[in-house]
Amino acid sequence: MIEIERKFLVTSRAYQGQATLKERIVQGFLNTHPERTVRVRIKADSAFLTVKGKSNEAGTMRFEWEKEIPVPDAEQLLSICEPGVIDKVRYNVPVGQHIFEVDEFYGDNEGLIVAEIELASEDEDFEKPEWLGQEVTGEVKYYNSQLGKNPYTSW
Amino acid sequence: MIEIERKFLVTSRAYQGQATLKERIVQGFLNTHPERTVRVRIKADSAFLTVKGKSNEAGTMRFEWEKEIPVPDAEQLLSICEPGVIDKVRYNVPVGQHIFEVDEFYGDNEGLIVAEIELASEDEDFEKPEWLGQEVTGEVKYYNSQLGKNPYTSW
Repeated sequence: MIEIERKFLVTSRAYQGQATLKERIVQGFLNTHPERTVRVRIKADSAFLTVKGKSNEAGTMRFEWEKEIPVPDAEQLLSICEPGVIDKVRYNVPVGQHIFEVDEFYGDNEGLIVAEIELASEDEDFEKPEWLGQEVTGEVKYYNSQLGKNPYTSW
Repeated sequence: MIEIERKFLVTSRAYQGQATLKERIVQGFLNTHPERTVRVRIKADSAFLTVKGKSNEAGTMRFEWEKEIPVPDAEQLLSICEPGVIDKVRYNVPVGQHIFEVDEFYGDNEGLIVAEIELASEDEDFEKPEWLGQEVTGEVKYYNSQLGKNPYTSW
């Protein structure tokens, strides 16, 4: 499938009070090449292997393929991932007709908070909550695949 | 799981008459880093995603994880793989208590024929058929992940 997403920085923690779900995510990458990333993710009690292709020029559309895998398999695969595993807490925050996924990063990316919204088309309108900051859609340094190698606290 | 394998060149096509199975394999790689290769394979009517870790020093043991996936998914994933898709015909050839997998390569690797045997332990004995040539276990240039980038006909 093709994913259409926009990504923003976050300016306050007000989203926490509006969240309907909060879960810990630990993930690593078997490949961080931007044209074919391969991600291993443990999210609460489930695990997934996800392949993402190259973005379009605007950075809004990207091929994505995902398969659920057993958690013990994911743990084995994490052990051979590239150095720099990502540890974050994700909040699902409904705003108007959409749900923002807000990721608070820990470890070497402590202090970084990013919100993503999935859209049905590139020009779909959506409500912007007051905690939504600067747009960073398509900026490669905010890709999770890059945050392992070049973490936020080193910028 | 950990895979124990030895790999050999092949000196004649006599194995063809001893084969119990012959099937076409088309495969590509989402990652060819020898510490974490990610392979997409279509084998006859099935498809698989396979992750392999680093070998031990002798090249005989390697972490391997595999999951069957739908063929249309594999076709989509092949389209974003690294350039250099591998096209080969595999023969399963029983010899004594073991089965050799003999791969005849086509395309840019035309002329290369390699036989692999899976063993229960590194020092397990096995019968050597007369068509078995020089051992190439652990030689990285014979890894399928390398044959896409640096094919046999260019050696």
